[in-house]
Amino acid sequence: MQGKIKSREEYCIKLLKDKIISDGMVKEGNILKVDSFLNHQIDINLGDKIGEEFHRLFGSYPITKILTIEASGIGLACLAARHFNVPVVFAKKAKSKNLTGELYRSTVSSYTYGMDYDIVVAKRFLTPEDNLLVIDDFLAKGKALMGLIDIINQSGATLCGAGIVIEKGFQDGGKIIRDMGVNLHSLAIVESMDENSIVFR
Amino acid sequence: MQGKIKSREEYCIKLLKDKIISDGMVKEGNILKVDSFLNHQIDINLGDKIGEEFHRLFGSYPITKILTIEASGIGLACLAARHFNVPVVFAKKAKSKNLTGELYRSTVSSYTYGMDYDIVVAKRFLTPEDNLLVIDDFLAKGKALMGLIDIINQSGATLCGAGIVIEKGFQDGGKIIRDMGVNLHSLAIVESMDENSIVFR
Repeated sequence: MQGKIKSREEYCIKLLKDKIISDGMVKEGNILKVDSFLNHQIDINLGDKIGEEFHRLFGSYPITKILTIEASGIGLACLAARHFNVPVVFAKKAKSKNLTGELYRSTVSSYTYGMDYDIVVAKRFLTPEDNLLVIDDFLAKGKALMGLIDIINQSGATLCGAGIVIEKGFQDGGKIIRDMGVNLHSLAIVESMDENSIVFR
Repeated sequence: MQGKIKSREEYCIKLLKDKIISDGMVKEGNILKVDSFLNHQIDINLGDKIGEEFHRLFGSYPITKILTIEASGIGLACLAARHFNVPVVFAKKAKSKNLTGELYRSTVSSYTYGMDYDIVVAKRFLTPEDNLLVIDDFLAKGKALMGLIDIINQSGATLCGAGIVIEKGFQDGGKIIRDMGVNLHSLAIVESMDENSIVFR
């Protein structure tokens, strides 16, 4: 920590934004590729600091479980869960024949995959007694997050908050989710981007 | 640590085996469901101890990266990677249009999903200079692990070892992989199982 960095949280956010600027790549179709440190290769030190920051933001809630969605949310959720000392539950994309028993189910329309897919969570892992924190790597149109919220509502569990690493502020997911009254925190909000620059809100 | 538990490694293995016996469920078709603590809900304390045990087993190798495969390997790989202080790379099941650029690719025939699928890793994340540890939750017929080894061979990286949480010893994957000369360690090897009992090797 040096210069104008005043606190651990500012340090984490600066580290993240510096990494997005140095290693992120903007691709055609509004795609921000951060696969060298967030969702194909994972920088574990950064991920651990992100988890610590989520704990700073949400640690005052009586979180019982962290909920995320496969695949790229899992690593970040596990690194964060160490700081909360709670289990992680990840929603699965419905395809496996191992998925038996009673399931909560929601449909997500994915821009990235160019198709709709179902996500499922076994009913026995979410109960009305649970206080949940949702964690995911990205928020753009908010479809995956809305699918998770739908599943949480089906289960009767309480949604205490949602922690996102990178929000695309120029897409409408963040506004929709906040307008629903969700306690949403995004560590980095990209206001605009093109091949030459990434601007944060 | 109590009674006849003599060391941290024995403690980890005992914790894991106790959990498999208390919470695992044997289902038709030789399926061992451990989704309450390993691959749908994740017990973070157990996962962290598993990571520590992998570090005890493989920490003497000059590991530069941990390689795993989505989805259920990711959490365990990230928890282990903290102990090694290296990044995680996870092979993706090929479907996303975010997967651009040069890719290593291998085909895996999955019993669980009842179909073949391709796995890919971006070439820039595996180089001949890398010393890799592969981590996964399960080893049965070894198809996923063989896909990862195929990708490692394409990349020219060195495979230092493979750490598996649960091996189904009554299927032939473990023997095939060991016969290939891979430094394979499975924390729990299930010798036989039915609805009433699970026997470890």
